[in-house]
Amino acid sequence: MKIQDTIKQNQLGLLFQQGTFGIEKESQRVHADGSIVTTPHPKPFGNRSYHPYIQTDFAESQLELITPPQQKLEDTFRWLSAIHEVTIRSMPEDEYIFPMSMPAGLPNADLIQVAQLDNPADVAYREHLVGTYGKNKQMVSGIHYNFQLSQDLIQTLFNAQTEYKSAVDFQNNLYLKMAKNFLRYQWVLVYLLAATPTVQDNYFKDGSPLKEGQFVRSLRSSRYGYVNEPEIKVSFDSLERYADTLEHWVNNGKLIAEKEFYSNVRFRGAKKARELLDTGIQYLEFRLFDLNPLEPYGINLADAKFIHLFALLMVWLDETADQSAVELGKEMLEKVAFEAPNSETQFRAEGEWLLTQLITMAQEINADAESIAVAQDKLSQFADPNKTLGARVLQAIQQAGDYQKLGATLAQQYKKQAYERFYALSAFDNMELSTQALMFDLIQKGIKIEILDEQDQFLCLQFGDHIEYVKNGNMTGHDSYISPLIMENKVVTKKVLAKAGFNVPQSMEFRSPESAVANYPLFEGRAVVIKPKSTNFGLGITIFQQGVQDKNDFAKAIEIAFREDKEVMVEDYLTGTEYRFFVLGDETLAVLLRVPANVIGDGRHTVAELVAMKNDHPLRGDGSRTPLKKIALGEIERLQLKEQGLTVDSIPTKDQLVQLRANSNISTGGDSIDMTDEMHPSYKQLAVDITKAMGAAVCGVDLIIPDLKQPAQPNLKSWGVIEANFNPMMMMHIFPYSGKSRRVTQNVIKMLFPEWK
Amino acid sequence: MKIQDTIKQNQLGLLFQQGTFGIEKESQRVHADGSIVTTPHPKPFGNRSYHPYIQTDFAESQLELITPPQQKLEDTFRWLSAIHEVTIRSMPEDEYIFPMSMPAGLPNADLIQVAQLDNPADVAYREHLVGTYGKNKQMVSGIHYNFQLSQDLIQTLFNAQTEYKSAVDFQNNLYLKMAKNFLRYQWVLVYLLAATPTVQDNYFKDGSPLKEGQFVRSLRSSRYGYVNEPEIKVSFDSLERYADTLEHWVNNGKLIAEKEFYSNVRFRGAKKARELLDTGIQYLEFRLFDLNPLEPYGINLADAKFIHLFALLMVWLDETADQSAVELGKEMLEKVAFEAPNSETQFRAEGEWLLTQLITMAQEINADAESIAVAQDKLSQFADPNKTLGARVLQAIQQAGDYQKLGATLAQQYKKQAYERFYALSAFDNMELSTQALMFDLIQKGIKIEILDEQDQFLCLQFGDHIEYVKNGNMTGHDSYISPLIMENKVVTKKVLAKAGFNVPQSMEFRSPESAVANYPLFEGRAVVIKPKSTNFGLGITIFQQGVQDKNDFAKAIEIAFREDKEVMVEDYLTGTEYRFFVLGDETLAVLLRVPANVIGDGRHTVAELVAMKNDHPLRGDGSRTPLKKIALGEIERLQLKEQGLTVDSIPTKDQLVQLRANSNISTGGDSIDMTDEMHPSYKQLAVDITKAMGAAVCGVDLIIPDLKQPAQPNLKSWGVIEANFNPMMMMHIFPYSGKSRRVTQNVIKMLFPEWK
Repeated sequence: MKIQDTIKQNQLGLLFQQGTFGIEKESQRVHADGSIVTTPHPKPFGNRSYHPYIQTDFAESQLELITPPQQKLEDTFRWLSAIHEVTIRSMPEDEYIFPMSMPAGLPNADLIQVAQLDNPADVAYREHLVGTYGKNKQMVSGIHYNFQLSQDLIQTLFNAQTEYKSAVDFQNNLYLKMAKNFLRYQWVLVYLLAATPTVQDNYFKDGSPLKEGQFVRSLRSSRYGYVNEPEIKVSFDSLERYADTLEHWVNNGKLIAEKEFYSNVRFRGAKKARELLDTGIQYLEFRLFDLNPLEPYGINLADAKFIHLFALLMVWLDETADQSAVELGKEMLEKVAFEAPNSETQFRAEGEWLLTQLITMAQEINADAESIAVAQDKLSQFADPNKTLGARVLQAIQQAGDYQKLGATLAQQYKKQAYERFYALSAFDNMELSTQALMFDLIQKGIKIEILDEQDQFLCLQFGDHIEYVKNGNMTGHDSYISPLIMENKVVTKKVLAKAGFNVPQSMEFRSPESAVANYPLFEGRAVVIKPKSTNFGLGITIFQQGVQDKNDFAKAIEIAFREDKEVMVEDYLTGTEYRFFVLGDETLAVLLRVPANVIGDGRHTVAELVAMKNDHPLRGDGSRTPLKKIALGEIERLQLKEQGLTVDSIPTKDQLVQLRANSNISTGGDSIDMTDEMHPSYKQLAVDITKAMGAAVCGVDLIIPDLKQPAQPNLKSWGVIEANFNPMMMMHIFPYSGKSRRVTQNVIKMLFPEWK
Repeated sequence: MKIQDTIKQNQLGLLFQQGTFGIEKESQRVHADGSIVTTPHPKPFGNRSYHPYIQTDFAESQLELITPPQQKLEDTFRWLSAIHEVTIRSMPEDEYIFPMSMPAGLPNADLIQVAQLDNPADVAYREHLVGTYGKNKQMVSGIHYNFQLSQDLIQTLFNAQTEYKSAVDFQNNLYLKMAKNFLRYQWVLVYLLAATPTVQDNYFKDGSPLKEGQFVRSLRSSRYGYVNEPEIKVSFDSLERYADTLEHWVNNGKLIAEKEFYSNVRFRGAKKARELLDTGIQYLEFRLFDLNPLEPYGINLADAKFIHLFALLMVWLDETADQSAVELGKEMLEKVAFEAPNSETQFRAEGEWLLTQLITMAQEINADAESIAVAQDKLSQFADPNKTLGARVLQAIQQAGDYQKLGATLAQQYKKQAYERFYALSAFDNMELSTQALMFDLIQKGIKIEILDEQDQFLCLQFGDHIEYVKNGNMTGHDSYISPLIMENKVVTKKVLAKAGFNVPQSMEFRSPESAVANYPLFEGRAVVIKPKSTNFGLGITIFQQGVQDKNDFAKAIEIAFREDKEVMVEDYLTGTEYRFFVLGDETLAVLLRVPANVIGDGRHTVAELVAMKNDHPLRGDGSRTPLKKIALGEIERLQLKEQGLTVDSIPTKDQLVQLRANSNISTGGDSIDMTDEMHPSYKQLAVDITKAMGAAVCGVDLIIPDLKQPAQPNLKSWGVIEANFNPMMMMHIFPYSGKSRRVTQNVIKMLFPEWK
């Protein structure tokens, strides 16, 4: 197969680089000191029988984080980041993720529990492995890198050749070539990316093979890692021979199952190797990568791109390793793994030759400049072993004084980082915060997410065969089409609510002062607000809070309003405080009070200083990237201060409330205060009833209530409904300025997937 | 009660004019010659047990059209017009609505059937009336005018007085006053509005009381109309006395029920008069109005406004008629009814005095100038009896030569008028045509409509207790919220449809010619269209209909596209014809082919003439008021002609197809052709499946199909889905340019109210 020529002749370079990627990352849950925990898999992650993102591998303490298949490595890393953030933030407060492959602080073997999976066969398999390899080796973690070539590429290459008649055979041999060459040259990746120079002594049953002060490139890739007995040899001559030999070892009991064959390359696409002859190898799993402890997620994007090019090179090369070359490659790996991390490798010439080939290939296929630069840097590491990851990790261990100590320090640091913007899912920060919160919960609960349109906040969710679509966090198929249309139209909303018997402030519009005054009897004794129809900065508004008693007063107010507009409204005035009720289905999940931007004096600081102090709150920021907004000190705020006889330099007295805004919007620095528990249940029921009258599943109901402790009465003096909003905001309930957090995104998930357990 | 003073002092003039109005209009279904039909109540009107708009009164041939209560008489007239149009257009082709109160062409009494209502008691009641009054009198038709004062007015007036302690008593006495004064002065309305100067002789059992050539003002209001025996006297002294005397007549068997008391004023608000003592009279029904045959709906707005002022005057007047005044009023009515229509009335002085009072009141309460002008015109009719309606009707009869002939001519004329814009509901012409079509069907079927927002096409529908909301004709609660959101986003639509396994044209976008060409193998052999991402007038587009075979051709096409845009798309090209499938639930209700604006040559006319002839089609118009649009002859059309070597002055040969547009939009003069029966059922099922995948209840699916006779195959050569549209257009299916009409609005109603029968 002269793949290289076909690609060059047909300019298939870009297609060659297309593919599908996935990363599986194992790691141990540890205490603050880096020692492995003996606690069960954390409850928030739900059930491992279906979780697509957060699993355990061998041990109950060993997390396995799995990214969904992606077409771009950049997206794979976004998912890796997101799954990490969810995992870390969902773990017990005193647990951490150990950043290194080789375990430190191993518990006594009897305290190590194999993963407590639902399927007894899965547990039995792990118990068997304990018998064969001991518990300690099973605690080793690493990164598995899944890579699939573009199906279009394979089809095109197949069409361009004559050797193979069957497309499946062609595909199998293509992946077989990639696998064999990979096994032949895998030592290069170990030289460049290995990061397990040592481990604590009690890891070894029979004492450490390392001399005092000896460090190696990769203990994990050596015979001391999690590898099969040396006698287990499997043929890569052909896929048929591969299946034959693998079945041989299973049949004679040396392997309990095919999956006990721990090759650094695995063929994926079927449960049994023999099935692949029919179905075709779908993708390869490369398993030799140590966790990079210097990266929060165990691997960085540049290295992942380099591995991609490396895998492509294995196909690009004209020659294909034969079985003896494969065996040679494994021997070279073993040797390189045991070299000192900062020493020159004995196979430097071959390594430099291979990377030169890689760089040539990268140029021929128009790989991006960044990737080529990374490859060139890797090439230079043969001349300068101190630049290799292994050498850098060794240096870090020596600086930390201890292997475990380095791991513990980094684990704590990465946990802290994951909490920096605890209200966000950093990798998806270009989406709305509410969608980030929902995705956080979905990842945690193990519901599959496909982002259909990132700009449009459009997700496709799947649990088993059950598919749901969500837009903007809570717009779903559970609402009927007509209900947002009703809510969108304030006139229709009022009519529908009034029809259903709710207290709605009524209004009348007038086009002349005469007609308004002629209707005075309609309003006599009623609390009304008289205002120009298009309100501008509150000009022309008169409020009769106690009810209008005098016709002349009324006429005067009408006249004032008509100075500002050609149309004037007389509307029921509702006294009381406005609360936002977040209703989902039959329940008011949260009640929120929004308070205009303000600071409280302390008798010592100026208004400007008080504002700066308040703005320091972690939830406050600018733009849409934080749940709360910083208080500005612009023209409007200064005017508001002036009305209170203050300037930004005034020093308010202790406990003095200083208003910086008249409006209560969160977007202008207002405070959000959770009042769910304080609110009388009758109002919560009302909000639910209003939501039902709107035909809505999710609704934000704004009620004016004078006394939240008194039960609701059927008149406007007790309460009135101002607005019903579809797609109501969720972040202000999840991250209020004060009061209890209400994680309403979880209720959205429960609504969509009631079967989730 | 000095109502007048209270209103003046408190400037309640406008409030006084507020109220609620309703009109009930009886009339006979007749043959073209004006003779009464003996056919059953037309089927399309559904069941009279619930129909709110279209009922029968006494006889099976006697329609009773009922407007829903409205706050403005203008709206009452819109409803009267709409119900009329629906009724006329739903009647058998050879039936008409007789425009006069007194019947002509009476069938033999044994052929007159009482209304065949579901309730046996209702039928029995009518049979009893036959016994008492004979069948002929029962065939008399008229207009009943319902009027309710504003509840706020009554409350205000009540508050302003001390005489009554009970609000209900006050209200009852207010309406009692209106009723008594009305009965006292009703002769004035008969003088001005009466329109039954004669009737055919066989109407009278014992021979006509009219001498040869004698005409009267109102036979219907005379003792020869449908009135009680003279002995039936009921007291209006108080509501209690009213109930007492009414019950007396029922108890002694002179009346079969209270409703057999045919007063020209009825108290409404309860089944029995005595109940009104508790519940209060809610409104009055004035029953003395003859049909005005010179108006298509039997009454015009100016007269209705005059009657409103007249009713108000009955409250405004300081004095209240006592029982003897009521009896006097009835006698005066009888006398005036029998006066010659073109003669001066014997009570002219009183009439002029009363209308002077009315005009004064109208001015005091700031009635609109138009109403005051009408009142002044009515006043002048006392001096000039020829201006009265009765005189004008008499003149028309004499011109027509015959009473029945006039009725027949007018009936035919009004039916023709109602068909003039047969696709519209004229009174609601400011709404969308589709909403008009839906309202037509709703009125016909007897489902209650409340217009929540006219601009926004927002309706509230009710059948029994079952309420549904509809916006824009087919946006309802039956669609889920997420499905229009999916359809709104073309990227998401494609993904969802592709995921569900439908044939969707795939596309790739490129930012450089190099990357596009590098991906050539992806497209080799495939039918693709290469186009700039933002297409402008078709510039830069290349189509490889037969599949791209040559890389150089592909590269050239890419280069051409990049001349127009920085981003270029390569998209699957679908050969075939585009069809619109209108799907509702489990069924494709209609399939439409849209053909670009065109004319067919006849070898004689120029293009301009052919266009003018085609534009003459009744469905074609400008703007949005017609289902199809006129073909323009603007720049684009002239360019299109030029491409065919034609100008507007060319004379195309016989059968030559002349294209005037490249696009097939109906809005630019395109033709709509129904293809529902021609389309292979497999595509109709596909459209249903696509609709289900969208989660939609109502959907417009656009499919490209090369051969509509061949069953669908699972590949893009057989068909491809281009778009799925929520709120799909309905008018083009209901009124296609050619092919069968598909009245999909009826299916919308069936979907909303499956219980309707």
